[in-house]
Amino acid sequence: MNNNKKSQIEVLCIGTELLLGNIVNGNARWLAEELARLGIPHFRQTVVGDNRERLMEVVLEASKRCRVLICTGGLGPTPDDLTTETLAAAFGAPLEERSEVLADIKAKLTARGRPMAPSNCKQALLPLGATVLCNPLGTAPGMIWSPVANFSLLTFPGVPAEMQAMWEQTAVPWLQQQGLTSGIFRSRLLRFWGVAESSLAEQVAPFLELQNPTVAPYAGRGEVKLRITAWADNAESADGLIAPVEKELRAIGGSNCFGADSDSLASVVLAALRQRGETLAVAESCTAGGVGAALGAVPGASDVFIGGVIAYANQIKQALLGVPADTLASHGAVSEAVALAMAEGARRCTGADWAVAVTGIAGPGGGSAEKPVGLVYFAVSGPSLSFSFMRQYGASRGREWIRGLSVGDALDQLRLAL
Amino acid sequence: MNNNKKSQIEVLCIGTELLLGNIVNGNARWLAEELARLGIPHFRQTVVGDNRERLMEVVLEASKRCRVLICTGGLGPTPDDLTTETLAAAFGAPLEERSEVLADIKAKLTARGRPMAPSNCKQALLPLGATVLCNPLGTAPGMIWSPVANFSLLTFPGVPAEMQAMWEQTAVPWLQQQGLTSGIFRSRLLRFWGVAESSLAEQVAPFLELQNPTVAPYAGRGEVKLRITAWADNAESADGLIAPVEKELRAIGGSNCFGADSDSLASVVLAALRQRGETLAVAESCTAGGVGAALGAVPGASDVFIGGVIAYANQIKQALLGVPADTLASHGAVSEAVALAMAEGARRCTGADWAVAVTGIAGPGGGSAEKPVGLVYFAVSGPSLSFSFMRQYGASRGREWIRGLSVGDALDQLRLAL
Repeated sequence: MNNNKKSQIEVLCIGTELLLGNIVNGNARWLAEELARLGIPHFRQTVVGDNRERLMEVVLEASKRCRVLICTGGLGPTPDDLTTETLAAAFGAPLEERSEVLADIKAKLTARGRPMAPSNCKQALLPLGATVLCNPLGTAPGMIWSPVANFSLLTFPGVPAEMQAMWEQTAVPWLQQQGLTSGIFRSRLLRFWGVAESSLAEQVAPFLELQNPTVAPYAGRGEVKLRITAWADNAESADGLIAPVEKELRAIGGSNCFGADSDSLASVVLAALRQRGETLAVAESCTAGGVGAALGAVPGASDVFIGGVIAYANQIKQALLGVPADTLASHGAVSEAVALAMAEGARRCTGADWAVAVTGIAGPGGGSAEKPVGLVYFAVSGPSLSFSFMRQYGASRGREWIRGLSVGDALDQLRLAL
Repeated sequence: MNNNKKSQIEVLCIGTELLLGNIVNGNARWLAEELARLGIPHFRQTVVGDNRERLMEVVLEASKRCRVLICTGGLGPTPDDLTTETLAAAFGAPLEERSEVLADIKAKLTARGRPMAPSNCKQALLPLGATVLCNPLGTAPGMIWSPVANFSLLTFPGVPAEMQAMWEQTAVPWLQQQGLTSGIFRSRLLRFWGVAESSLAEQVAPFLELQNPTVAPYAGRGEVKLRITAWADNAESADGLIAPVEKELRAIGGSNCFGADSDSLASVVLAALRQRGETLAVAESCTAGGVGAALGAVPGASDVFIGGVIAYANQIKQALLGVPADTLASHGAVSEAVALAMAEGARRCTGADWAVAVTGIAGPGGGSAEKPVGLVYFAVSGPSLSFSFMRQYGASRGREWIRGLSVGDALDQLRLAL
């Protein structure tokens, strides 16, 4: 393969626990974020178990494809930690004991009051020609090793804190020296509610073809995001590429675009009310506290959000929120009239300037032909307006999904009313 | 390559967001757990971006190595969702529009009150000869396709809930039909609250050395789990291996073991109260509805959980829960006395048999030397007892962690009181 065509970097995570699903691969994510931050594109991640034959196969394949392979895991003292010896064997290199590593391991164990076990000696063995990557936290050193031309291996322990410390102290400067880092990536996440991913993607279709910055859509539960990512020599230039695209995307998204980066519907609602000096309460039936919990998740919510009533049973709707018994009887608990009465009742009993109410059928039981699972009524009541609205989410996505969308739609309509 | 030497299964996750580190690869972990549960070993996971050339390269490599490649991601309607068309191109197969898929997409969008966008039509295109893997939740169908001899592809959307539903409904029976499962793995998840992972692991240390069944600890936010996994020819034999180990582990865990498998603290509390024919209310300050939302997440909660008050501001604690002004003034809102008054007030104003109250400082602001961030008071009040308790979680883990632990501890102490 032409070396110019070699991709720059790949990530290889080694550990049977990953293949058993015992842990999530947080190291791959962390390294991916770091590589993006440094402006080093990587195009592939691989996971293999602590198995000599399969690890050799993967490493030899990678050595033909990429210039640098970042390996994590398998550097510990136990018999199933076989990364270093397997990499050495893959390229036919002998292992040698590094006295400085042995001394470092001994010193660390002594400081913890632990004896030097024979298995710890194994950690001082590195292939001939490898450079030690010091581990400031643990006993497992890593290495930087170029076993063949135009291919280097970096090894890190699987323990996230150790890997991260070694990465920052040693690997980043090395990658920069190698000329692998070129420029910098910056990104901006625009957040939308009330629009489907497919519909938003169509509206912004020409932007999805851009090369720098790129624009990519992501869908979550109700929320849709557009990530704008720019590459440039420095942060200012990258931000300069992002700004005009962000402006255009916001114009297209209109009021569906509720914020960016770490904003949430709750944080945006709270900020708007804070600016107006007004307070907010909730009256929740099917969401059972979910709207309140979303508001309370925002640091500093307490100057705007004062509380409310979880009115799961009709008796609470009547007793605390003052929903009239005949409204409940004639319209049913899941109705526009009850939602409005709940929101107005929440303002009355809490003294809040604004209130939002939710009442619906989250399922799986409780639905009927007239009022099926997924039917939810909402109301927003403020100093000079009250309105209600309805959503039919359908039953197919299940209880958690219906409750999650209900929380979002309640906050979103309140946001739009502000 | 000799087909007998082919490894059974590999996992391929497709998505540029994984290579940018925007999200952690939870799908890989979930699939790995499932494969282990089914007794299907897999030896490699790969991640590539939404890139036609690189995806083709990876898939063609995998087709030479494994019998089944499980792919996730890239089935959405947007231009960067290119998995299906790329897989078809990799094996030179034409795409054809499946009218039944098109009808299903249209029906789902109509049910949600959304128009059919041209981009949605793309999701109905599948390679000639592929079998549709129905998506019960979303619009993106997957497929089972054998483009060459002794190699099958399964595709799933990247949205976890959709992938999981499709996996359970269609992929698992298919894998079993293929004879890929050898014997059966069964597992039992024991759930603990109120004990640290390291402490529990020490108490059950000899069990962690077992080979069949194996016992593995997992830590979450406050909750600790022990997974017992047994392999046998059939379910009865596997369950027979699990049962005695479960019994011993439950004995060691004592009252810290609150349930198994899909139990949650909320479901266990609701079941206990349902059996007693008693009802429950909440009074929440710092959790702001989180306890209510956890209870409401359990299907059928409404026969026990009737609602409550989110008393974020002191005025609500007074007005709705009847917490005396002088109690608030003399003890402060975050105090044992206020927690007790909140719980008793919640029972009074809702008429519930039981109530649980939470008041604390979730941070990052609002702490003092005397009442630091992470200090939370709780109370439980029932027909014939009331008690309060306190937790000091510390500030270091942050607001979300403190609120999550508070929800768990509130429910846990109520559980123990029942």
